[in-house]
Amino acid sequence: MRLGDIAEHLGTWVRGDASRVIRRIDTLERADAESISFFSNRRYRRQLLATAAGAVILSEADAGDCPTNALCMGNPYVGYARVARLLNPVPEMEPGIHASAVLAPSCAIDGRAFIGPNSVIGAGAVIGAGTYIGPNCVLGEGVRTGDNCHLAATVTLCAGVYLGHRVTIHPGAVLGADGFGIANDDGVWIKVPQLGSVRIGNDVEIGANTCIDRGALEDTEIGDGVKIDNHVQIGHNVRIGEHTAVAGCVAIAGSTRIGARCSVGGSCAISGHLEIADDVHLNGGTNVPNSIAESGNYSSALPLQANRNWLKNMARVKQLDEIARRLRALEAKSK
Amino acid sequence: MRLGDIAEHLGTWVRGDASRVIRRIDTLERADAESISFFSNRRYRRQLLATAAGAVILSEADAGDCPTNALCMGNPYVGYARVARLLNPVPEMEPGIHASAVLAPSCAIDGRAFIGPNSVIGAGAVIGAGTYIGPNCVLGEGVRTGDNCHLAATVTLCAGVYLGHRVTIHPGAVLGADGFGIANDDGVWIKVPQLGSVRIGNDVEIGANTCIDRGALEDTEIGDGVKIDNHVQIGHNVRIGEHTAVAGCVAIAGSTRIGARCSVGGSCAISGHLEIADDVHLNGGTNVPNSIAESGNYSSALPLQANRNWLKNMARVKQLDEIARRLRALEAKSK
Amino acid sequence: MRLGDIAEHLGTWVRGDASRVIRRIDTLERADAESISFFSNRRYRRQLLATAAGAVILSEADAGDCPTNALCMGNPYVGYARVARLLNPVPEMEPGIHASAVLAPSCAIDGRAFIGPNSVIGAGAVIGAGTYIGPNCVLGEGVRTGDNCHLAATVTLCAGVYLGHRVTIHPGAVLGADGFGIANDDGVWIKVPQLGSVRIGNDVEIGANTCIDRGALEDTEIGDGVKIDNHVQIGHNVRIGEHTAVAGCVAIAGSTRIGARCSVGGSCAISGHLEIADDVHLNGGTNVPNSIAESGNYSSALPLQANRNWLKNMARVKQLDEIARRLRALEAKSK
Repeated sequence: MRLGDIAEHLGTWVRGDASRVIRRIDTLERADAESISFFSNRRYRRQLLATAAGAVILSEADAGDCPTNALCMGNPYVGYARVARLLNPVPEMEPGIHASAVLAPSCAIDGRAFIGPNSVIGAGAVIGAGTYIGPNCVLGEGVRTGDNCHLAATVTLCAGVYLGHRVTIHPGAVLGADGFGIANDDGVWIKVPQLGSVRIGNDVEIGANTCIDRGALEDTEIGDGVKIDNHVQIGHNVRIGEHTAVAGCVAIAGSTRIGARCSVGGSCAISGHLEIADDVHLNGGTNVPNSIAESGNYSSALPLQANRNWLKNMARVKQLDEIARRLRALEAKSK
Repeated sequence: MRLGDIAEHLGTWVRGDASRVIRRIDTLERADAESISFFSNRRYRRQLLATAAGAVILSEADAGDCPTNALCMGNPYVGYARVARLLNPVPEMEPGIHASAVLAPSCAIDGRAFIGPNSVIGAGAVIGAGTYIGPNCVLGEGVRTGDNCHLAATVTLCAGVYLGHRVTIHPGAVLGADGFGIANDDGVWIKVPQLGSVRIGNDVEIGANTCIDRGALEDTEIGDGVKIDNHVQIGHNVRIGEHTAVAGCVAIAGSTRIGARCSVGGSCAISGHLEIADDVHLNGGTNVPNSIAESGNYSSALPLQANRNWLKNMARVKQLDEIARRLRALEAKSK
Repeated sequence: MRLGDIAEHLGTWVRGDASRVIRRIDTLERADAESISFFSNRRYRRQLLATAAGAVILSEADAGDCPTNALCMGNPYVGYARVARLLNPVPEMEPGIHASAVLAPSCAIDGRAFIGPNSVIGAGAVIGAGTYIGPNCVLGEGVRTGDNCHLAATVTLCAGVYLGHRVTIHPGAVLGADGFGIANDDGVWIKVPQLGSVRIGNDVEIGANTCIDRGALEDTEIGDGVKIDNHVQIGHNVRIGEHTAVAGCVAIAGSTRIGARCSVGGSCAISGHLEIADDVHLNGGTNVPNSIAESGNYSSALPLQANRNWLKNMARVKQLDEIARRLRALEAKSK
């Protein structure tokens, strides 16, 4: 593909040789004369200066450091995403139902869908056109998927789960398992029946081994365009607003509502029954015990220290209230 | 169902119209005149005042705020759990073995059990009466389950795992994988064979994608009535006492013993070889590096702050020991 | 087996009766006269003094406390690992392909491999000699495994994943799912195609429900001898050096490189694009927001406190910068 055509696809132009032929996308370090690369993280400036790439996508501000043909964009990472797809289109899916799949007689599978080996589809399930159900998936009774969904393999959708269009789910994810509803009856836990379901919007991506529990009474709801990484736990009745991104190993407890366009960094833990406003950004490892009414950036993680310093400082954390009181006493005395 | 009958089931009485017909249970917000609802979390008082429910289960103390028929109970959340089950009974299971299941010749499956499509049952396994093994489960050699267990789908029980009666396990859970036993032999890790197994008591519930490792020499043991949420990691030789509840994303390292009637909040991390007393309650996100000898409530999580404050305060955490020493010096001087 | 033979296997000698017959290995507490045990954690000294074991493996320094035959070694835990294997050898695997497995016509399975019930092997996959693929595994197109690997059950290897020799993978693990690559295009997340794969070295062990994502452009790489526990999340393009150990529930974000011979305690969270030196040891629960250039021990977790103290002290953490400034002002005044 000629570099000029790539630039056109991105809505920009080539500073340099537009006729250069590009066959691959690669990192600055590995790219050769037939590769295009990108520069969007300043940690890698040394690699930019030394790159052998045939072209680099980068911002106007960094163009001066580019030793080869440049494609300038406001957001070079978006440019990278688009060119990577342009050079590596998704292969066409061949529809069909593998002979080893087990289908309940009453399910409705579109003729343009694919059901993989050893997958099990329950009674009343509806599978949309162009939807791919990979090997060893389980879809319970009454599951409905939209069109062009992609369940990679070993995905479990419990009874009644609903997916919109173009939903991608990675292996090991479990949607619609019972929420953790238990009531303490004189020292013995009794189960609260989990009667709701899970509703996933359009264009949602759900990572490997992520769990999204069914609601207790209402549905758990994931908005359009939400992207969820691996090992995320989403409790019953949670609602996540459109275009929010949730990184790996995040835990969101039951009934919490997260706004639109938020980003939740890896390993955050969000308590239950909270309201998180739109456009809230949580740094990795943040504990969220209270609602957040204002958009903005929030954090709580303690940064690491060498062990000996950490031990001394942590002992002082336990004295903090006392330290503050002694400081106040001293201030009073010195007046 | 008449409201008077529901009240009787709960061991209470109706303040209002006992002949009211109730068909559903729902949230305060969504309930209509044929629905019963409940009020147990004061965050939702506004919804109580505005509810259109036909009846509400709530505590005596809150009855004054109830705009409709009231059923008063000491623990309205328990009332909710019981009425939800009363109105939504568990459907009868039809026993049988699906043609696609793969059974070792020597396993013993009770005639009243169900083995789902594509499940694999190993040699010498014993499956109790009324036990449901959903689709795509794997039960290794010598696994034994009690009666009336429910393995939803895609559950893996490794060789020799033992389940009591009425154990519920959600999809993706793995019981009996090898514990993380490694010994450092001059810079190279060698594996410690994991020769124990996993013993699960009666009435235990285990969440989706939770792992409970087999013991190194002794068994890992989960007591009767324990409830475990999703994404929990329980290391080898851990013992958890009766009626303890463990919320999502908790990690419990090897050989730790947790007492009875404890509650472990989401995302807690408990180190290995500890003893946690009975009736200990850990708030979400608590790190537990030491044994806990006394019952009570414990926490360690830092609450979130706006980023700019967090950055300034975290820098000071690293100076805490120095701050405490400077304070002491100043105190000495001012005497 | 005679105790003298066990001692010889360990490269040590018996202090006591070398002709004693040993049949089992067990804990100090449960061992009887025909059992050998070990002592490597001083928390268990009381059990050593009271043991009924036929022999104990322990260090020279602890031999005086041993009430029975002693085998002294510099590292008794290594001795335990070796004797446990000696007394419990891995059973011979019988090769073969189960009739219910689904194999793409073009895959190449060594005659000495085993493919379990309901496993699915994709086109072009290559399975090495002595490799065991347990029940309900999914191996995508072009997956290659070395010799003598062990995939316990329900393991998913996505397209193109490469395993070295003697790799053990526990149930529910997912290797090669797409990394979390998303680019924000004016408020809408677009997917960054994940074009790399995953390369696992020799003698690696990977825990249950652990995820290792495929690289965006380059491969994600796990070095020889690395041991990874359950519920670990390893992002795209991560590289882990040889003989590093990663405990349960650790999250390692994308593009981070971890050195050789490191140990990462349970529940650590490591940010993306970092460089961690060789021989770094992270205590459990450590947040790592920055690169670590020097080997050593690091920590960040706050230890737990009784709730009432924690509440008071945490309120002060939010005032820390102010406290430090007030202290400085007081110091200036007192000069």
